[in-house]
Amino acid sequence: MSTSASASQVVITPQQFLAHWQAHRRLTRRVIDAFPADKLFTHSIGGMRTFGEIAKELLGMATPTVAGILTDQWGKYEEAAASTKAEVLTQWDAITAELDAKFLEIPVERFQETKTAFGQWTMPVHDLLLYVIDNEIHHRGQGYVYLRSLGIEPPAFYDRS
Amino acid sequence: MSTSASASQVVITPQQFLAHWQAHRRLTRRVIDAFPADKLFTHSIGGMRTFGEIAKELLGMATPTVAGILTDQWGKYEEAAASTKAEVLTQWDAITAELDAKFLEIPVERFQETKTAFGQWTMPVHDLLLYVIDNEIHHRGQGYVYLRSLGIEPPAFYDRS
Repeated sequence: MSTSASASQVVITPQQFLAHWQAHRRLTRRVIDAFPADKLFTHSIGGMRTFGEIAKELLGMATPTVAGILTDQWGKYEEAAASTKAEVLTQWDAITAELDAKFLEIPVERFQETKTAFGQWTMPVHDLLLYVIDNEIHHRGQGYVYLRSLGIEPPAFYDRS
Repeated sequence: MSTSASASQVVITPQQFLAHWQAHRRLTRRVIDAFPADKLFTHSIGGMRTFGEIAKELLGMATPTVAGILTDQWGKYEEAAASTKAEVLTQWDAITAELDAKFLEIPVERFQETKTAFGQWTMPVHDLLLYVIDNEIHHRGQGYVYLRSLGIEPPAFYDRS
């Protein structure tokens, strides 16, 4: 089988997967940034967490998941420590750089291996990574409602630039 | 390259991709079903659409996208017609069956081809399909806030059974 025939069997490459994730992370960063600084950790609906608390969860999942996949060393899951919008955005940008530096070090065969993340969640690596991305999209959707309820137009969902 | 070596280069297979989508669709169905019938098309927050209107969008995207990818024939995007919870759920289940019947007919090399969906959205096929799934996750996240604001506990995000 030639390299090009092999490439044509691929649904999505690791490079494309990383680009997809970072595109979502650019949008999520804009959603965080759209909150007034005094609302990020105070505004909520229906007894749910603030979007600041949600962001701490997202910050705690991204690079520790990739590090665990790379090294097979998993600590306990911990949300990030942050209490201001500026702290959240600074950590967000550090993770962006770290994902760009590390993600493509994942050996491609590992995406089909099954791992137990953080001692708790056992699934194939591609599902683990999709779970982290999907969890971000899910919570970001909540953030859109919070913004609308504050009278703020959220960033366009389709714009990932 | 042997078949097994080739398989090991794969991030996610078409079968796994379909399973991932259907798992999300089971959760979205439970979110639709968690709405009281008289709230699905009436309750909203911040001037956003009701979850019933959102469901009509999701119903209108799934199978026409797969059909377009399969046939290269694209109509105009149209949301589904439905005005009751029962109608939405009936159409949801029909689409579940149709995706199971058709999705794996997509030739695997097509995931890396670029298409223009509904005459408007030009991107690689894997991105088109991820867009449809991500759009569902995004809007379902809004549905979670609507349910909480009604005092209803939403289905668990991690349960895709």
